[in-house]
Amino acid sequence: MAHQDLSWRTVVQRRRYSDGLDAVEERLSTVAGTYAEPLGSAARSLLGAGGKRVRPLLTLLCASRRAPLAAAVVHAATAAELLHMATLVHDDVLDRAELRRGRATVAHEYGVETAVSTGNFLLARAFAELALTGDGAAVALLSKTAVGLSEGEVLQRQEAYDVTLGVDAYRRRCERKTADLFAAAARLGALLSGIGERQQLALGEYGRLLGLAFQVFDDILDLDGDEDLTGKRLGADIRDGTVTLPLIYALETRPDLGPRLRDGGRLDEAGVAALIAEVRATGAIARARGTATGFIERAQRLLSACSDDVERDLLGEVARSVVDRYA
Amino acid sequence: MAHQDLSWRTVVQRRRYSDGLDAVEERLSTVAGTYAEPLGSAARSLLGAGGKRVRPLLTLLCASRRAPLAAAVVHAATAAELLHMATLVHDDVLDRAELRRGRATVAHEYGVETAVSTGNFLLARAFAELALTGDGAAVALLSKTAVGLSEGEVLQRQEAYDVTLGVDAYRRRCERKTADLFAAAARLGALLSGIGERQQLALGEYGRLLGLAFQVFDDILDLDGDEDLTGKRLGADIRDGTVTLPLIYALETRPDLGPRLRDGGRLDEAGVAALIAEVRATGAIARARGTATGFIERAQRLLSACSDDVERDLLGEVARSVVDRYA
Repeated sequence: MAHQDLSWRTVVQRRRYSDGLDAVEERLSTVAGTYAEPLGSAARSLLGAGGKRVRPLLTLLCASRRAPLAAAVVHAATAAELLHMATLVHDDVLDRAELRRGRATVAHEYGVETAVSTGNFLLARAFAELALTGDGAAVALLSKTAVGLSEGEVLQRQEAYDVTLGVDAYRRRCERKTADLFAAAARLGALLSGIGERQQLALGEYGRLLGLAFQVFDDILDLDGDEDLTGKRLGADIRDGTVTLPLIYALETRPDLGPRLRDGGRLDEAGVAALIAEVRATGAIARARGTATGFIERAQRLLSACSDDVERDLLGEVARSVVDRYA
Repeated sequence: MAHQDLSWRTVVQRRRYSDGLDAVEERLSTVAGTYAEPLGSAARSLLGAGGKRVRPLLTLLCASRRAPLAAAVVHAATAAELLHMATLVHDDVLDRAELRRGRATVAHEYGVETAVSTGNFLLARAFAELALTGDGAAVALLSKTAVGLSEGEVLQRQEAYDVTLGVDAYRRRCERKTADLFAAAARLGALLSGIGERQQLALGEYGRLLGLAFQVFDDILDLDGDEDLTGKRLGADIRDGTVTLPLIYALETRPDLGPRLRDGGRLDEAGVAALIAEVRATGAIARARGTATGFIERAQRLLSACSDDVERDLLGEVARSVVDRYA
């Protein structure tokens, strides 16, 4: 995490982007602050839990640097984070999660009903925020992404404990659940600051690859992270039956692990730890890390084809920071 | 219902509007048809359950009759219905309802998880549909309404079994839960067909009053309807603790009914029936009917101030049809 924070900080230290992120933070608290209890409290506790605001930062960095950051770009950055947060709240309902980032989830603290409404509220607020841009294409892009997110939620449950899952199915799920929102966040910044169609597409693809890498590294963390640093117990994906890329790779060489993964929900602490050790022993973690690094390299190549209207260097830093936390 | 269907039919028989509703229906099945199982099935079963499509009809009728119905108007009408459906699915999760319009709810048939995702999917699709108009003001209007809907859900639960609830609080909840979406549906038709600001506002207010009347009559039906015609058991609001206008009126003259209403969730069949009989005996139903009729009269007066770019007569028919079912 130290590595990541370092390069992350070089990006955020640029006045333009730290100001931009402050403006997003202000919009987020305005959104959370104006609503009736317990929705307001639920939304505030969620916002207070923070997070790195990677999606808003992508939006800000993908806006043309030829002009000052426009209000529309800040609205879009805020909308991307609101949509992400809506997904988190609903996911916690679906996963019956009790903790998120070390705090009680909305579903656990306020009940499932408030969590469903809070998620709906944040989803609606995402579109209200984006509507402030007055840009129909921006709304079309984010709503398509939101549709995909709801499908991704369903895919994740449908595919739970399915140890026959292949790399293509995994990737499709990651795109809907994670990467398409990274892509939209990036593309919105470009779209709303007048960057041309061709570079918009390149930046969207950069965001998508970054999101895929981000997800794969997240999946690796669940099997190979430092519990003290991540604040999460290892093996959550095994218990939930989320068949991730390192698990798919491990199954290719050790198909005999299949039945135990299929029963992941019933394994005790020692059983999960033993399974993680066997997965690690296959070399699947290193192979997944290679796949993610490959995504990052492709993302970097897309940047080098962009004009210098685009913050190529800082976007490159962001891409590297995703890899660095595993260096 | 027979009366209502009669005047409803005179409206829908106009070729322009029956074609418009057919176009909406086609959009709705396209939306439901293109998605992965079980989301697709859940959405289709919901769409198949039908309903009168009153919100889309309002949008179509509020579009200027000086021009053919534009695609944008059909998209907005579809979006209003999708948003309504999203709310229904999530409400069924929150209310743990098993039946809606005589069919199993999505939550009951497919589980809470699929219901939450289906609701999110429909909500996102509503904005994707509206984005097809390319109109930022339309998106701003509907997203504001969607925010209010999520607040209305919370209000309804917060105020459950609160027998001290006044008329103002009831009205505020009805606006967020029902009337604001009627208002938005009406106003979107006007907005997207170039009707001027002043008449847009009048049509929005007409929709709001219609929505309020619709909700009050719905609340009356729960205490005074014919179970064979409505397909619903009487007294659901008493059991759920939803303190409706007729109940508020009844409490004004019979405050001693308060403790029994506060315990509505624990009453048996006979207890609910006895309570309904006592509410009826206070004259509260007639008084609530008077309030709703008052809303309709105000809606009619707003129409008479509109120019003849607007379907004043048919909108008047629709308003009458809401009253007629209780004539």
